[in-house]
Amino acid sequence: MKRNTKVSTAVIRRLPRYYRHLSELQEAGTVRISSSALGKSMGLTASQIRQDLSCFGGFGQQGYGYKVDSLKEEIGEILGIHRGHTVVVLGTGNLGRAIIENFRFSSNGFRLLAAFDVSPRVVGSRIAGVPVYHADSLEGFLAEHPVSVGLLAVPISAAQEMGDRLANAGVAGIWNFTNYEIAFDPQRVVVESVHFSDSLLALNYMISQREEERSEEESP
Amino acid sequence: MKRNTKVSTAVIRRLPRYYRHLSELQEAGTVRISSSALGKSMGLTASQIRQDLSCFGGFGQQGYGYKVDSLKEEIGEILGIHRGHTVVVLGTGNLGRAIIENFRFSSNGFRLLAAFDVSPRVVGSRIAGVPVYHADSLEGFLAEHPVSVGLLAVPISAAQEMGDRLANAGVAGIWNFTNYEIAFDPQRVVVESVHFSDSLLALNYMISQREEERSEEESP
Repeated sequence: MKRNTKVSTAVIRRLPRYYRHLSELQEAGTVRISSSALGKSMGLTASQIRQDLSCFGGFGQQGYGYKVDSLKEEIGEILGIHRGHTVVVLGTGNLGRAIIENFRFSSNGFRLLAAFDVSPRVVGSRIAGVPVYHADSLEGFLAEHPVSVGLLAVPISAAQEMGDRLANAGVAGIWNFTNYEIAFDPQRVVVESVHFSDSLLALNYMISQREEERSEEESP
Repeated sequence: MKRNTKVSTAVIRRLPRYYRHLSELQEAGTVRISSSALGKSMGLTASQIRQDLSCFGGFGQQGYGYKVDSLKEEIGEILGIHRGHTVVVLGTGNLGRAIIENFRFSSNGFRLLAAFDVSPRVVGSRIAGVPVYHADSLEGFLAEHPVSVGLLAVPISAAQEMGDRLANAGVAGIWNFTNYEIAFDPQRVVVESVHFSDSLLALNYMISQREEERSEEESP
């Protein structure tokens, strides 16, 4: 597929939302959708939708809208969903366990191969069918299995060390849930962090703004 | 504080990152920082930093940089950190429990008042000191305690219903961890969703792009 590889971060950040919305539309049986309807359900304008999607070659047909399944396929292709990427989870505390048990890795194009921990209570067991190995065997496992992404759900104190071990063993990406900003050479490994606090602070801002607006409306 | 209230979403999304970085700098003992050094540690340009912060009135002093503690205070003020917002957690499965036990609500300006669940195994107990009540008593609790935010960590099947109950009971914001897009009148309640899949898909995109670049470099 030919496409412009210089795509802005903002567009990249929206692509997964497109993919998720299109999956939901597909499950609901929608075959075709206009840019304005797609925009409405995503809180974007029709022109924004057309502009975003044109970055990748423009799949819409004037007056006919987008075919949900082929648009989803194309965006999935751009996102690399079908590349057979694999993932291991480091840390099986509550958060790691919640993700292993509930997150649909396969819907996002990933195979979850294994989990690693140090606690004798879990090492050797399985969580939702996924084997849990001792963290000491991480490098040995990675040498034998090609792993694209390491999910970090270890305590903050172990975050950088375990991240370094993943990077040294050649994983391409680290999905960081530790609330710690891991420092890496971006040429070497891609880090995507899920910072719960950034999300809560943004929410705090939004509700604070609203409180201010309401108090201004109430005051004469 | 006087400020321009029309601030772009992109800037709002960056403010929590500023706050987090400034907190880390403060803990590390840094007193003053230039816009270029702050930018470098955050992956932004100095001019971007100056532009972002000028949206809120511009606190920097030409040639002296920013005072870490007062900049952090001002951003905290903008974010509404000191407004005494409160939160309750709905759902104490692995994810809800992980958040209750590990997330530093107080560092983000929130007091965690209570959790709610339906399982007799947890109702009546405490998780990290936080009382767990039966979901049936949610409205009664909310009538007696002012709650700003409801954190949704219930199964997808219960997401919309519990979100509706929170909104009907008057919470200002919903922090949604259900991986389900809850539908609300945005005038009524603010929803901030943590979509793990969007994050993983963005990571997938980034590592796929890198794989393509590498294979292009290798081919003649």
